[in-house]
Amino acid sequence: MRFTSHMQTALFEARAAADRGEVPVGAVLVDPRGQVVAQAGNRTRELHDPTAHAEILVIREGCAKAGSERLPGHALYVTLEPCAMCATAISAARISRVYYGAADPKSGGVAHGARVFSHPQCHHVPEVYDGISAAEAEALLTDFFKAKRP
Amino acid sequence: MRFTSHMQTALFEARAAADRGEVPVGAVLVDPRGQVVAQAGNRTRELHDPTAHAEILVIREGCAKAGSERLPGHALYVTLEPCAMCATAISAARISRVYYGAADPKSGGVAHGARVFSHPQCHHVPEVYDGISAAEAEALLTDFFKAKRP
Repeated sequence: MRFTSHMQTALFEARAAADRGEVPVGAVLVDPRGQVVAQAGNRTRELHDPTAHAEILVIREGCAKAGSERLPGHALYVTLEPCAMCATAISAARISRVYYGAADPKSGGVAHGARVFSHPQCHHVPEVYDGISAAEAEALLTDFFKAKRP
Repeated sequence: MRFTSHMQTALFEARAAADRGEVPVGAVLVDPRGQVVAQAGNRTRELHDPTAHAEILVIREGCAKAGSERLPGHALYVTLEPCAMCATAISAARISRVYYGAADPKSGGVAHGARVFSHPQCHHVPEVYDGISAAEAEALLTDFFKAKRP
């Protein structure tokens, strides 16, 4: 199925992030025709930028390519539940569908904590599909933090 | 008082944003010695970037200058209540104090909606001071939207 293959690309980006010493999270942005327009892994350490989460990077790249601050009809695949920052950016960009992998009880902002899409103030609520390749995404994170804190 | 003068700089940035056709919100980032390290107004339209809120722009610039994804001891002044994206970025950047002007019942994420700092998951909660030069900040926004929707 197509969403599985886009999530595999996101997992590839997550593994590449881990290799750079970044928290292994990857994201893929897909346009309404099903074409990948941006793919990225976390780069917060490399860029000294706390906003350089994988989701923010693909949204910024996709918007720059589209010449628009909105991406209607687009889908975003990300290996981990988006935090409140990324969820709000997804809403601001009017992204239609979000597919994510592992749940993030500690920093997630979709099904946990701020639950950004669950407030009447949220201007645009995407369709959300969770648990896609979740075990694989979670294993990447577990291995990364295990290696850092032996 | 010093915080009033930094908010005046933020209001200057908000007015400059309005002159560029951007939603008039301005922000100033101040380092622990009280020096302004970054100041910006919204640039979402100009940059085709839904994440280019004033707060995000000063955080990114401040982190780039500091060579760090964290800005402990820093203060952020912004003319409008931060949205959930900006509030989460403020927390991720470990900013110590946030001074804001007008309340934003529609899109705010501090005292409204997602209330980002109010969840046990929030890793870092800054001190928050609201209502600083609020009438001035609100008038800018009201005038801007009145002119756009005659």
